[in-house]
Amino acid sequence: MSERPISRFPVPELKGLPEDVRAKILAVQEKAGFVPNVFLTLAHRPDEFRAFFAYHDALMEKDEGLTKAEREMIVVATSGANGCLYCVVAHGAILRIRSKNPRVADQVATNYRKAEITPRQRAMLDFAMKVALDSATVDDADFAALREHGFTDDAIWDIGAIAAFFAMSNRLANVSSMRPNDEFFLMGRVPKS
Amino acid sequence: MSERPISRFPVPELKGLPEDVRAKILAVQEKAGFVPNVFLTLAHRPDEFRAFFAYHDALMEKDEGLTKAEREMIVVATSGANGCLYCVVAHGAILRIRSKNPRVADQVATNYRKAEITPRQRAMLDFAMKVALDSATVDDADFAALREHGFTDDAIWDIGAIAAFFAMSNRLANVSSMRPNDEFFLMGRVPKS
Amino acid sequence: MSERPISRFPVPELKGLPEDVRAKILAVQEKAGFVPNVFLTLAHRPDEFRAFFAYHDALMEKDEGLTKAEREMIVVATSGANGCLYCVVAHGAILRIRSKNPRVADQVATNYRKAEITPRQRAMLDFAMKVALDSATVDDADFAALREHGFTDDAIWDIGAIAAFFAMSNRLANVSSMRPNDEFFLMGRVPKS
Amino acid sequence: MSERPISRFPVPELKGLPEDVRAKILAVQEKAGFVPNVFLTLAHRPDEFRAFFAYHDALMEKDEGLTKAEREMIVVATSGANGCLYCVVAHGAILRIRSKNPRVADQVATNYRKAEITPRQRAMLDFAMKVALDSATVDDADFAALREHGFTDDAIWDIGAIAAFFAMSNRLANVSSMRPNDEFFLMGRVPKS
Amino acid sequence: MSERPISRFPVPELKGLPEDVRAKILAVQEKAGFVPNVFLTLAHRPDEFRAFFAYHDALMEKDEGLTKAEREMIVVATSGANGCLYCVVAHGAILRIRSKNPRVADQVATNYRKAEITPRQRAMLDFAMKVALDSATVDDADFAALREHGFTDDAIWDIGAIAAFFAMSNRLANVSSMRPNDEFFLMGRVPKS
Amino acid sequence: MSERPISRFPVPELKGLPEDVRAKILAVQEKAGFVPNVFLTLAHRPDEFRAFFAYHDALMEKDEGLTKAEREMIVVATSGANGCLYCVVAHGAILRIRSKNPRVADQVATNYRKAEITPRQRAMLDFAMKVALDSATVDDADFAALREHGFTDDAIWDIGAIAAFFAMSNRLANVSSMRPNDEFFLMGRVPKS
Repeated sequence: MSERPISRFPVPELKGLPEDVRAKILAVQEKAGFVPNVFLTLAHRPDEFRAFFAYHDALMEKDEGLTKAEREMIVVATSGANGCLYCVVAHGAILRIRSKNPRVADQVATNYRKAEITPRQRAMLDFAMKVALDSATVDDADFAALREHGFTDDAIWDIGAIAAFFAMSNRLANVSSMRPNDEFFLMGRVPKS
Repeated sequence: MSERPISRFPVPELKGLPEDVRAKILAVQEKAGFVPNVFLTLAHRPDEFRAFFAYHDALMEKDEGLTKAEREMIVVATSGANGCLYCVVAHGAILRIRSKNPRVADQVATNYRKAEITPRQRAMLDFAMKVALDSATVDDADFAALREHGFTDDAIWDIGAIAAFFAMSNRLANVSSMRPNDEFFLMGRVPKS
Repeated sequence: MSERPISRFPVPELKGLPEDVRAKILAVQEKAGFVPNVFLTLAHRPDEFRAFFAYHDALMEKDEGLTKAEREMIVVATSGANGCLYCVVAHGAILRIRSKNPRVADQVATNYRKAEITPRQRAMLDFAMKVALDSATVDDADFAALREHGFTDDAIWDIGAIAAFFAMSNRLANVSSMRPNDEFFLMGRVPKS
Repeated sequence: MSERPISRFPVPELKGLPEDVRAKILAVQEKAGFVPNVFLTLAHRPDEFRAFFAYHDALMEKDEGLTKAEREMIVVATSGANGCLYCVVAHGAILRIRSKNPRVADQVATNYRKAEITPRQRAMLDFAMKVALDSATVDDADFAALREHGFTDDAIWDIGAIAAFFAMSNRLANVSSMRPNDEFFLMGRVPKS
Repeated sequence: MSERPISRFPVPELKGLPEDVRAKILAVQEKAGFVPNVFLTLAHRPDEFRAFFAYHDALMEKDEGLTKAEREMIVVATSGANGCLYCVVAHGAILRIRSKNPRVADQVATNYRKAEITPRQRAMLDFAMKVALDSATVDDADFAALREHGFTDDAIWDIGAIAAFFAMSNRLANVSSMRPNDEFFLMGRVPKS
Repeated sequence: MSERPISRFPVPELKGLPEDVRAKILAVQEKAGFVPNVFLTLAHRPDEFRAFFAYHDALMEKDEGLTKAEREMIVVATSGANGCLYCVVAHGAILRIRSKNPRVADQVATNYRKAEITPRQRAMLDFAMKVALDSATVDDADFAALREHGFTDDAIWDIGAIAAFFAMSNRLANVSSMRPNDEFFLMGRVPKS
């Protein structure tokens, strides 16, 4: 049944896209071996496409304060809470690869309190979930709890901003009924020999 | 980190268990190749162990009205909603095997509205989720909606009873912090050649 | 209006039931003077009937760690939260009898924080309600709070397992619209002279 | 344990009260045979006492549009939802007496959808519960549903105003931890011979 | 579009009202320059009108323990949480005037945790919001927290009673779709020169 | 008390900012007469700043399908639901100006069901609120309801994307405790003569 549409909205053909959008998509395809559907479903709005991925990369493609795997944990935990199939499956794959742990994505998506993570990562996810689910009540005590685990202002900003960015991303995927590519489901699950 | 305990409560050794409990566990091990942790974590209470599995088998090991795969869908969807890691992972594996679909368990656990299921299965899960999350409001209109999809009284009882049984099972697993065996995470994901 | 049906599902006649099921029902009738409707509404599924009552008796018919009255408090408090009329009324009656207090069932069903119970029982019900309503968030701090009140691992298991069992039972009763027998409403309210 | 205080706040002695407040309390005592604790716990604020009971009587002591028993149903159903022990127990007693049904108060307090009430009363309670729990979303469709059952504007106002008044009353009782008199628990349960 | 009706229910003409009700309305008009719609929408029920305003004035027209501005803060914060447009707008105006702060009403209505208030006022609003939204769980720890900020029993009663009274008032306004007068929106926003 | 910090995080000085970021800020200041704090609080992360405003402008600075005022309605309604003070106050000001209605922002922020808006705008906000608060349940029926009001696919995308973008923005503001500039509170309230 993977023949189901990848979006509720029209998906443009590659050849009609602006050059930079098309180039970005081809580069991803080159690297991953396939085009993740988020690139195709957002491409009908080139300006939003550009801003979305610029924002995404600014938050996710760095390793300071939080590791790349930890950033993906935030995505998977909050996306699970938001019932976002695309993000749980696609970022679950990335989390498995970056953490080199084939179980942690399923754990974090279902109930991060039972996941194979450190107490510091648990505190990180406690905060991320509060930002995702009840940001109006975030207060100084939450910041104090994070600082006890050694998180700097910059790392706290990253946790909050990643949870915030995927609050947006989850809603875009849920509204468009964005379908995760079949490839993501198995990625990072089988140890390479 | 799979060295974490499989339960918050003491786990008895096989040799000290009543004969029938031990026999049941060994039979499962024979069949599955490993002992699912739910058998070990419940064994310290032999009477409860016997009732639990008798009840489970009465509801899950039949194919009338609902297929075995559909029964597992109910388990996975409601366990996802209850944040029960053990049941999502263990029954997700069984669902993949029984449905011969490597994606449907992750879909149903995250957001069954986006899953590769039929409208009839969607109606089944709508009802199961209401039983799981807000059973006080179940009313005649819910039964009418199921009957429109051809569900009989017996099938409706099964949907309700499976959702109810795993309401119990999810709580036992969450209280005991029951750890899913590593084996479950990959089962049914890789097509056999 | 007690002429309303006792279940949304077919209720079998006693004479057609398997011998052991019928014997169990007759024994209850002998003891109580009437047949509680839960026995009749579950009887159409003999295997589930057997497992249900075996499980129930394993959890409720003992006095170690928790008194029998305390076990009923857990049932009444969580059933009130789940809006389960059958369990509130039937187990409310049993609680009044076992506690020899004609008020405590109504108190516990409505708001256990205002009930005539000990601080230890309050802690027991705090935990039971968390298991009933939000088991995904149960964690070590909950266990520590119970241990401060002297609860052993065995007693904690009982609290959790009773709350879990009635999570199932409440859902079965809500789905089937199980009607409590008229007799239960008054039982244990009038002091015997 | 009925020796527990009847309020978290100071309860004045009768003799120090303003004449009209004292007279009202004595009149109730004369009629009921005891002084319901709500009169004592509110008496420390005579102006609020007067307004409270004037408002209460204006809404509850009439029989047009809604019967007095129906008015009490609204109180008991919404007080159950608000976890207000005093109102469930005290008004449950009045509801039993006014409806001449010893079961309906427990039914309505626990889950009004399962109560021995008419479809018109069910519609009345659906509306009252929405007013109690989510009044911001009340809209024209709710009024249309009530009119289909023959409720006039005046009757709809009464339903809404009673639910609103007891939203206040429930909160006063919960804040003050107002204890229901022991007498209420049994009133209206035993048929008079 | 201010031509929309001020209530879903009939609004009586001034001349047909009982003398005391009409006098109260004319006095308000004299003082405010217009008749706040709450007076007109409640006037079709003179007894309820009298009780409502007697109660209101008993709670709001005093300055002991809590200032008048603090009383209005409680109204605005809880009315915001209840989605009550009339109370947020009308009492927001009064709060701006009494606090001489043109911003605080919008802050408190939207998220009192971000408002320009003192820690003592924050504690007051924490309690008021619990009374408004979850009064069944109010307990001794809440009282202790208020006493640490110096609140007396009388002041705590006032906080609780004001939150309770507006739980009623908000529901009356939401049910009747009471429209705030245009005048309120701007009152207290522009410093007088 | 406007001396409170504008963010929990460090706010950079203008002179140290990258040229394009500084130019954008100065252009806003030129146009508005002051620098809205969102520009200052995001500036410590230039790449995120650029992506944020590029995304914002792509969604908000156009008039097709939805008017600019309607776009602001979506922001104000969902920000109210998320308890985001900055967005309610700042975008409330813009909504007042763009709609030329000094009341509609307060209405939409408090309870959009009571606002002076058209049925089409009501349907738009119903959808936006579902995206904001429960996007996992968005389904085909929601799209059908919007199409009945004449919304095209492009307009529906805009509603969803604006609600999604401000899901992010609200969380950033709540985490950073972003303070709205004093100027916003009064903007658009007083008709220009």
